[in-house]
Amino acid sequence: MTIQAKFSRLGTDNAPGQEVRQGGDGTDFLQGDRLPGRRVDFSHGDVDAHEPTPGSFEAFAAGVALGGAQAYTEYRGDLGIREDLATRLAAFTGAPVDARDGMIVTPGTQGALFLAVAATVARGDKVAIVQPDYFANRKLVEFFEGDMIPVQMGYRAAGPGQAGLDLDGLEAALRAGAKVFLFSNPNNPAGVVYSKGEIARIAALAAQYGATVIVDQLYSRLLYTGASYTHLRAMDLDPENVITIMGPSKTESLSGYRLGVGFGSRDIIARMEKLQAIVSLRAAGYSQAVLRTWFNEPEGWMTERIARHQAIRDDLLALFRGIDGCFARTPEAGSYLFPRLPALTITHGAFVKALRLQADVIVTPGTEFSPHTGDSIRLNFSQDHAAAVAAAERLATLVERYRA
Amino acid sequence: MTIQAKFSRLGTDNAPGQEVRQGGDGTDFLQGDRLPGRRVDFSHGDVDAHEPTPGSFEAFAAGVALGGAQAYTEYRGDLGIREDLATRLAAFTGAPVDARDGMIVTPGTQGALFLAVAATVARGDKVAIVQPDYFANRKLVEFFEGDMIPVQMGYRAAGPGQAGLDLDGLEAALRAGAKVFLFSNPNNPAGVVYSKGEIARIAALAAQYGATVIVDQLYSRLLYTGASYTHLRAMDLDPENVITIMGPSKTESLSGYRLGVGFGSRDIIARMEKLQAIVSLRAAGYSQAVLRTWFNEPEGWMTERIARHQAIRDDLLALFRGIDGCFARTPEAGSYLFPRLPALTITHGAFVKALRLQADVIVTPGTEFSPHTGDSIRLNFSQDHAAAVAAAERLATLVERYRA
Repeated sequence: MTIQAKFSRLGTDNAPGQEVRQGGDGTDFLQGDRLPGRRVDFSHGDVDAHEPTPGSFEAFAAGVALGGAQAYTEYRGDLGIREDLATRLAAFTGAPVDARDGMIVTPGTQGALFLAVAATVARGDKVAIVQPDYFANRKLVEFFEGDMIPVQMGYRAAGPGQAGLDLDGLEAALRAGAKVFLFSNPNNPAGVVYSKGEIARIAALAAQYGATVIVDQLYSRLLYTGASYTHLRAMDLDPENVITIMGPSKTESLSGYRLGVGFGSRDIIARMEKLQAIVSLRAAGYSQAVLRTWFNEPEGWMTERIARHQAIRDDLLALFRGIDGCFARTPEAGSYLFPRLPALTITHGAFVKALRLQADVIVTPGTEFSPHTGDSIRLNFSQDHAAAVAAAERLATLVERYRA
Repeated sequence: MTIQAKFSRLGTDNAPGQEVRQGGDGTDFLQGDRLPGRRVDFSHGDVDAHEPTPGSFEAFAAGVALGGAQAYTEYRGDLGIREDLATRLAAFTGAPVDARDGMIVTPGTQGALFLAVAATVARGDKVAIVQPDYFANRKLVEFFEGDMIPVQMGYRAAGPGQAGLDLDGLEAALRAGAKVFLFSNPNNPAGVVYSKGEIARIAALAAQYGATVIVDQLYSRLLYTGASYTHLRAMDLDPENVITIMGPSKTESLSGYRLGVGFGSRDIIARMEKLQAIVSLRAAGYSQAVLRTWFNEPEGWMTERIARHQAIRDDLLALFRGIDGCFARTPEAGSYLFPRLPALTITHGAFVKALRLQADVIVTPGTEFSPHTGDSIRLNFSQDHAAAVAAAERLATLVERYRA
């Protein structure tokens, strides 16, 4: 494969935050006037509306004051910080974390995902990937020339408390030779949380087939009323076959520091560190100090953050459910909403463009997450509450304008 | 190739900063007592002795204050910052820099190197690599399953003002099909600067054979009295075939912010950005704001920094030249010294370990840079002046202790 062919599969034109690189050409399909209103970029959270954890900047400043010891850490991150975190992550996930050998600090959770896939997927290896799921999962497997086996998640039809993963489909993928299963929980983009039964079955299948599971739990702290979360790593399977990925970038609005962690299998973490040494050396040394605030927030802060997000979620859900023919499942965790739109006179891709050009509303097209969800759009609703509602109202207006 | 085999080639046990993960086993070869003295880690610079650029922390704080706009930039970095930098980098390198399409901000220069190699080297591609050169160059080519063609640099025998690259060897590598030539200038570890004639010949050969050149100019600002620097990108060759990599991490002691830039070929930069989207998304948003201080330091600051390093260099050189049988070429730029040690009763690898355990002096073994420089060690002399001299004196004492 030529380098050009390899990279042509890594399209980022529709990736969140990259809209600025899209041209304004090909807009003949637009009908009607622009709708006035404050621009809302639903492609990622608004860290101005939901500010970084109290004390995070001070922790960074303390890191800078420490000087060289904080600037140059081990490639896998500062040991003192890993020790601090290991205790808190063990308490959160319900299983021990080995600070010395079973954890790596990375530049964002994206960094951990990249390293984890690189450390487990060789050319030609089969990898089970959920559809829909975070768009980078597929791209990572393609970049390392793995062979993707899609497993469908029926989040629209699933019963209450079920994410809707096709567990028989997962078993078939493992039986067909998938060595790795990579998924996000809560699911990005659908916002659904896997039930205890689903996680138990995933654990049992991984154990039975000796597969490695990489689970991206980025949003697992932002859990809404009534939802219950099961950590795969606390289930009955070989801990050397599980890597859990988290990070303080989303829920805590700390994205600007670029921090993530991978923890679990010592062998895989060792390979991840070897690779990090040539990818980026380490997560920014001073930024690592911000991890001291993680799972260590002021009393009541997380409860308040969850309540504010739940209120936005509920208003947006009501709004989308008011659009005839629109389907929107209630997100149980995280800040993604993934409504399916009704049929339109233009393609859904063109509608996403119309939204941006005519309503100053930026969303991520459903095609990024699965070839089967082109009729859906993803919204990160971690936004200013009133602005998000107003933007969703403009979106509803445009749906009516372009309704088939 | 299995994933285990692929990663076994990525050893980091002797990588700078990783000594903490080495066991203390196998020390029977040690003779005599420990030498007292303050620990000096020559594996990287001491940012406490040479502090970060004035205003860098304030620039970071201003980035945090900007909020979401600074936290979420394009994957290739904030456009305003790129525009600022492009002007200054064009002035420094003597050729235009395209801020919009020809530049990417990365997590450290390591990040830029990784992306540049990934974006140019497909499996089986031949890549010309200098020996000795920065150890990650070889590892990157191996990771992407390129086929390395070594080109020797005779820095010991080279005439004055010459780095000593075997230019006929480079031509032979290109004639044999090398598509990419990757090198550092000044050379890491030898600290030598390529002459104008050498750079002109590299440019001519690249043009003749249509090869892409990736040049790591990380230390090109820290230029000592009498040295003159030629920027490859300002020579007569297709700018689409050159990527230049720099960063404010070393000379400016800003390593803790993890910043680098790659600039040049638009096609290659576009591929680098696509890959960065799945590797780490972007350089930490807030850190990017620190680039506003780069090439924008207070009047006289760089002159002073160079003078202080030159004084340390000269004292260390005198010390190494006082060791019978030791060879040390004068570094013309950067802060690396690469002395060849005399024959010892123990291997040079064991001597590096003895240095650490008996003298609290950490150096990087020459085997990291070339299979032919196992008798040499690399010292980053960006250290406290007095501590560095004292550490080198302890090193000299140990050389005598173990002299063959």
